[in-house]
Amino acid sequence: MRRHRSSLGALLHHVHVSGPLSRAALATRMGVNRSTILALTAELVAAGLVSEQPPSGTTGAGRPSLVVRPSPRFFVLAFDVAVDRLTAARVGLGGTILDRRSAPRSRIGVDLETVVRKLVSLGRSLIDAAPPATVCVGIGASYCGMIRPGDGMVRYGPELGWVDQAFGAELAKALDLGLPVAVGNEAHLGAMAEHERGAGVGVPDLIYLHGDVGVGGGILVGGKLLGGDAGYGAEVGHMLVNPVDGRPCLCGSQGCLEAETGEYALLAAAGRAPGPSGAGAVRAVARDAVTGDPAAARAVAEIGDWLGIGVANLINLFNPGVVIFGGMLRDVYEAAAPQVAARIARHAMPVSRERARLRLSALADDATLLGAADLGFAALLADPLTTPALR
Amino acid sequence: MRRHRSSLGALLHHVHVSGPLSRAALATRMGVNRSTILALTAELVAAGLVSEQPPSGTTGAGRPSLVVRPSPRFFVLAFDVAVDRLTAARVGLGGTILDRRSAPRSRIGVDLETVVRKLVSLGRSLIDAAPPATVCVGIGASYCGMIRPGDGMVRYGPELGWVDQAFGAELAKALDLGLPVAVGNEAHLGAMAEHERGAGVGVPDLIYLHGDVGVGGGILVGGKLLGGDAGYGAEVGHMLVNPVDGRPCLCGSQGCLEAETGEYALLAAAGRAPGPSGAGAVRAVARDAVTGDPAAARAVAEIGDWLGIGVANLINLFNPGVVIFGGMLRDVYEAAAPQVAARIARHAMPVSRERARLRLSALADDATLLGAADLGFAALLADPLTTPALR
Repeated sequence: MRRHRSSLGALLHHVHVSGPLSRAALATRMGVNRSTILALTAELVAAGLVSEQPPSGTTGAGRPSLVVRPSPRFFVLAFDVAVDRLTAARVGLGGTILDRRSAPRSRIGVDLETVVRKLVSLGRSLIDAAPPATVCVGIGASYCGMIRPGDGMVRYGPELGWVDQAFGAELAKALDLGLPVAVGNEAHLGAMAEHERGAGVGVPDLIYLHGDVGVGGGILVGGKLLGGDAGYGAEVGHMLVNPVDGRPCLCGSQGCLEAETGEYALLAAAGRAPGPSGAGAVRAVARDAVTGDPAAARAVAEIGDWLGIGVANLINLFNPGVVIFGGMLRDVYEAAAPQVAARIARHAMPVSRERARLRLSALADDATLLGAADLGFAALLADPLTTPALR
Repeated sequence: MRRHRSSLGALLHHVHVSGPLSRAALATRMGVNRSTILALTAELVAAGLVSEQPPSGTTGAGRPSLVVRPSPRFFVLAFDVAVDRLTAARVGLGGTILDRRSAPRSRIGVDLETVVRKLVSLGRSLIDAAPPATVCVGIGASYCGMIRPGDGMVRYGPELGWVDQAFGAELAKALDLGLPVAVGNEAHLGAMAEHERGAGVGVPDLIYLHGDVGVGGGILVGGKLLGGDAGYGAEVGHMLVNPVDGRPCLCGSQGCLEAETGEYALLAAAGRAPGPSGAGAVRAVARDAVTGDPAAARAVAEIGDWLGIGVANLINLFNPGVVIFGGMLRDVYEAAAPQVAARIARHAMPVSRERARLRLSALADDATLLGAADLGFAALLADPLTTPALR
């Protein structure tokens, strides 16, 4: 019975991640025969979770394998609490962002109550705008800090100054949709999303670096998110890279990767003041460096040097198949690729780096949001027929 | 059938790791009923792999649960190629070192052919001294370098200057016992051994640091060895900790954890010349630091500072349950614990370090050798009834 439920979930997961797939393709991917696919699909059709249609462009020859599509009826709410903005989205089964709302964070304050109130307002407006007969089956949230697994407690979020704030529970209560809110660290979720449908598909050993004022990391080891003893693994931003004269870090230490490569370091090195939009200011420096602004070019080279040291260390430690640069680090890496490559060549062991590729995030600014959406879909995918929303 | 074989292997693994266990204890550990244990044990008894005996000190009351013991008939050869010595041992089912031979490495040269010849001589003398009717069921080897999984190729061993040497294949051929030689990185094997029967039992997220002239690492994530994309994970010794004025490292970089905390750094900081026995010289500095020699105390404090930075980084990255200091790092950590603790307090995130314990290796100098022995036993434990030696 458990096995059957997990097969239903696996099939639904395939069409959720890859979009419409023929029965034949599903049989191949799942390693089962077509009669099993037929039976599983029939149950999911009966529950309204998928539909079956002839493939488009079918010719008269032979009997075409029907295409299984995720139903447009089911969606999740996905929230993203980044340092400089709040985002909410309605994301459909299949991983499509159907609707989104956002607010710059700096205008609305940073305490738990204010953030939750604003997220609720964004979420309610999404629900109100949803087509009739659609159903919210889950809620996921990405947060820029260290999250306790299980209850979505923010243990530590230095950029917003949060310590032990019951974010997941408070957001669920205030939304009042009868659904829990699953919360994850933004870079952990970005790593999962890039692995499911981005620059890390098919790569089980993957490092995702996320720039969002600070620097976060999500690491997959053997296809599984590195949680560690209590779920707080991959605090890449607080790896000490400059112990001798490091810049002070929000965490209280100095010389952390985040302190040397984050937004504040880049702007300071370029002689620019921090502005309301971190992402915009970082992109401007990266762009100006490429187009020949000397101060911007020096700043990017300096930050790229430290980023390269951090990446070299991660390659030595994790022997990853791919390192993905996400968030603001996409822009930094694009501009500073030579410095990063030089540091890797100098400090990463040849055997450790011989197969490691460096890539830009394919999901760009949506990586963390799509990761949050997948958290929201997790219960449905684990057990498609008994999710509360279907009862 | 596969399921049954893996249950037989699981039972044998329990008595291999824990020693004699009652049927009742086995039933509890394996989560199966006693009639299943009875059936599995009967098959293993028939194959001569275990015996059943009444427990010692049985009173008359009730029917005692028979105790299942690993048979003394089966052993593996375990080899340990460390930087300054070669060791070979006969290790019995149950993990007991029954006999051992060793040779200082510096007297015999470092090329593949010489090392293999010496290991074969040590191994043959162990086989010759083995009691009649005992059987060698596997061969495992620990090597101080980066090992390709599958064929035991040494990709890189900076201390011995090896690059792409077919160590596993050559040792198997020269031993001519009709058995393959399974080779692993010394710190990877130390980590596994400490997890199975040492300071990391029951801790699925574990970091083992091994000092052997250089510094190696073995990391368990969720109970599994971190291999990474191609098996070369956890090159902890080449994490850059001192990018500004780091000591040169054998790998060609500078400021690596190994360059700042290894044997040569400690001896140089203490103003002592490297001698033939690295372990002895390191122990002498650590001992002299504790008993008040000022130069030794300064050296230990300096090295402990860098070691603490490395450990703080690892705690941030892995959120481990335990960090274990093995090999020469046992002595260094014992003498430099205050410096390590201070660096962790300063650089590791409070949430990341709140549950992390620091421990000395429980298996001491035998950690890597016992890890190699377990590699040798792996085939037997995976499928106890069809191991070649039993046919």
